[in-house]
Amino acid sequence: MKTFFNAEHAHHEGMVEMFRGEFVPCFDVPARAERVLVEMRRRGLGTMANPAPIKDEALLRVHAPRYVDFLRDAWSSWVALDPANAYRDALPSVWPVRQHRTDVVPDNFAARLGLFSFDAGTPLTQGAWRAARGGAACAIAAARHVQTGAKGAFALTRPPGHHAGYDFFGGYCFLNNAALAAQTLRDGGAERVAVLDIDYHHGNGTQSLFYERADVVYVSIHADPRTDYPFYLGHADERGCGPGEGSNVNLPLPRGTPFGVWRAALAQALHVIAEARVDALVVSLGVDTFEGDPISGFLLCSDDYLQVGEEIAYAHLPPVFVLEGGYAVDAIGVNVANVLEGYVACQS
Amino acid sequence: MKTFFNAEHAHHEGMVEMFRGEFVPCFDVPARAERVLVEMRRRGLGTMANPAPIKDEALLRVHAPRYVDFLRDAWSSWVALDPANAYRDALPSVWPVRQHRTDVVPDNFAARLGLFSFDAGTPLTQGAWRAARGGAACAIAAARHVQTGAKGAFALTRPPGHHAGYDFFGGYCFLNNAALAAQTLRDGGAERVAVLDIDYHHGNGTQSLFYERADVVYVSIHADPRTDYPFYLGHADERGCGPGEGSNVNLPLPRGTPFGVWRAALAQALHVIAEARVDALVVSLGVDTFEGDPISGFLLCSDDYLQVGEEIAYAHLPPVFVLEGGYAVDAIGVNVANVLEGYVACQS
Repeated sequence: MKTFFNAEHAHHEGMVEMFRGEFVPCFDVPARAERVLVEMRRRGLGTMANPAPIKDEALLRVHAPRYVDFLRDAWSSWVALDPANAYRDALPSVWPVRQHRTDVVPDNFAARLGLFSFDAGTPLTQGAWRAARGGAACAIAAARHVQTGAKGAFALTRPPGHHAGYDFFGGYCFLNNAALAAQTLRDGGAERVAVLDIDYHHGNGTQSLFYERADVVYVSIHADPRTDYPFYLGHADERGCGPGEGSNVNLPLPRGTPFGVWRAALAQALHVIAEARVDALVVSLGVDTFEGDPISGFLLCSDDYLQVGEEIAYAHLPPVFVLEGGYAVDAIGVNVANVLEGYVACQS
Repeated sequence: MKTFFNAEHAHHEGMVEMFRGEFVPCFDVPARAERVLVEMRRRGLGTMANPAPIKDEALLRVHAPRYVDFLRDAWSSWVALDPANAYRDALPSVWPVRQHRTDVVPDNFAARLGLFSFDAGTPLTQGAWRAARGGAACAIAAARHVQTGAKGAFALTRPPGHHAGYDFFGGYCFLNNAALAAQTLRDGGAERVAVLDIDYHHGNGTQSLFYERADVVYVSIHADPRTDYPFYLGHADERGCGPGEGSNVNLPLPRGTPFGVWRAALAQALHVIAEARVDALVVSLGVDTFEGDPISGFLLCSDDYLQVGEEIAYAHLPPVFVLEGGYAVDAIGVNVANVLEGYVACQS
C-alpha cells in the first residue's frame, strides 16, 4: 500500500496549548508523524510517495474562501501586530457566542482568530498553513491513487484534520484532510462515499461538513461528548438533516471502553457502511483509542490494532486511510502500522 | 443622589486574564469600585446605601435558568476537578462554534465553562458569583429607588454587567446589571425604558437581551467593533428585529475619537431616546472612554465627564446610573464622580 507523506508537516510545531485551564506543551508534535514513518519503513509496509502539490482552490471544495484567506495570511497578520509575536504562537481568546454575528470578518486579528476557531488548544504557528496544506495534499493524492485502482492508500498527515470545519480550526486541525479525500473521491466519480472515523474524539468538523449531504456518509466511534472533547457535537441523536437525514451515524462510548466493546461498535459501523451501499471509503485513522494515550480514555492495546485493520479489510472497499490523532508518541508508529498491516494481510 | 454599593464586589479578584495572546494581570480590580466610593464620599455626593438582598429568581428575569445554575455551582465544580484549582481561576479554552450544539449542557466542566462564555479574559473566581449577585442587587435596588420618585440613583457595581447575555459571561461581566435595572423598571410599571450605554465597548449582552423587544430601547456609543472588543456585535446596521425592529441604535466611533465628536454622538443618542418616548432611563456608565484608559482608545478628559452628566440631565428622565468599565484606576473615581456631579448640578 502506498503512503503519501509530506515533510512540510514539520514546519508546524506549536509551543503551548491551553489544556484544562493551563498552558502545557503541545501534544501534536512532529515526532508523531516521524515515528509512524520510521515504523512503516522498518516493516517495509509499501512504498512512500510525495504528494503532488495542490492549489488553494482545491481546499475550497470543503472550506470557505474567507477561512482559507484567513489561514493564508494569519501568521503575517499576527506578526504585524507586534514583532515580538514572531516568537510566540497565536491563540484565540474571544469568540462569537450565541446571538453574535459571524457574517462580518473583523479587521482586528484577535477577533478574526476567534471567529475562525473553537478552542485555545490549537496554536496557530508560523508553519501551520504550510504544514496543513502539505497534509491536505497527501489526503488528496491518496484519494486519487485509490481512484486509479489501488487497493488502498495511506495519507500520513499531520496536523490532523477531522476537527476542522467549513470555516473553523480547532483540535489541532486546520484543514479537514479526510473531508478533502472524500470530496476528491466524489469529484472523481464515486457516487457515494463513507467516512469511517475511529479517532477517540468525535470528528465534529467532518460531521458538520457533510451533515446535510446524502452523498457522504459519516460514521464515527468516539468518546461520549458529554464528557469528552469536542463536547458540542457527536451525540447519538445527530442523524443528519435535509437530504443528509440518516447519513450521519454517531456511536459514542463511555470513557474506559475496552477493545471488546469498541470492536462491537466497529462491526456496527461497518454494517452501517455496507447498508449505505457506498462505492468508496475514507478512514479517519486516529490511534488515540490506545490505552496509553495521554489525553484519551479508551483501552485498546497495540495488538488490537491489527484486528482493526483486518475488520476494515472485510468491508471490501479500498480505503483511503488518513492519519488523525494518537498522542502516545512512543506507541503511535506501532499502532498505526498495525492497522495498516492488518488491513494489507486481509485485503481482498 | 443615592448610591447603592455592596462590599461583596471585593470577593471577585481575578489573577490573570488572556489579553492579546498572553496572560496579564486582570484589569477589573476591586480598587476600581473603592476609588469611586472614596471620591463620592470626598465630594459628599449623596448618600450611600446597601442594597436589599435579592433571590436568584430575580436574576431569571433576564438570565437563563441553566446559566444561573452554572454560575452558582461553577466554583465548586472547578475545585472538585482538582484540589489545586482552589488556587487558580477558571478560564474557558473550548467553545461551541457554528454548527455546534448549545442545547445540551455537557457534564464536563471545561465544556460548560466554554458553553456559557465568549472570552478568556474573564476569570471565573471563587468570589465571582457572590460579587456578581451583590452588583445585581445594587442595580435592582437603584431601579426601585428611582421608581419610588427619586431623581436618580447610582448602582456602584463591580464586576460590570453589559457584556453578559441571556446565558453567557465575558468582558469581565457575569450578570447584566443594567438589563436587570431596565427589567426592574418595566416590572415596576414603566411602559418603555431606554438603556443608554456610554461605555467604550459595545454592550453586546444588553443588546442581545433586548434585541427583539420594543419595550426596552438600547442606544450605545462605542468603539467600532471592526477594530474593538467585543467585535462580533455593535455595528450600525443592527437595528433590532421582530417587535424590536428600530429599538436598537448603535453609534460606533473610530479609535482616537475626541470629546467633540463623541459629544455629538451623545446628543444623537439622547435625541433617539427623546423620540422613543420612554418613561425611564438606565445609563450604562463606563468611563473607559477616558484618554488614559489602558485598554481603550477614545480621548475624553476628566473634565469632559462633567458635561456628560449635564447632557444626560437634559433628558429629563431620572436615570439609574449603573457602573460598567473604566480601567484607569487612578482616574476612575474622579471621572465617575464628575458624571454624577454634572448630572446633579443640572437635574430638573
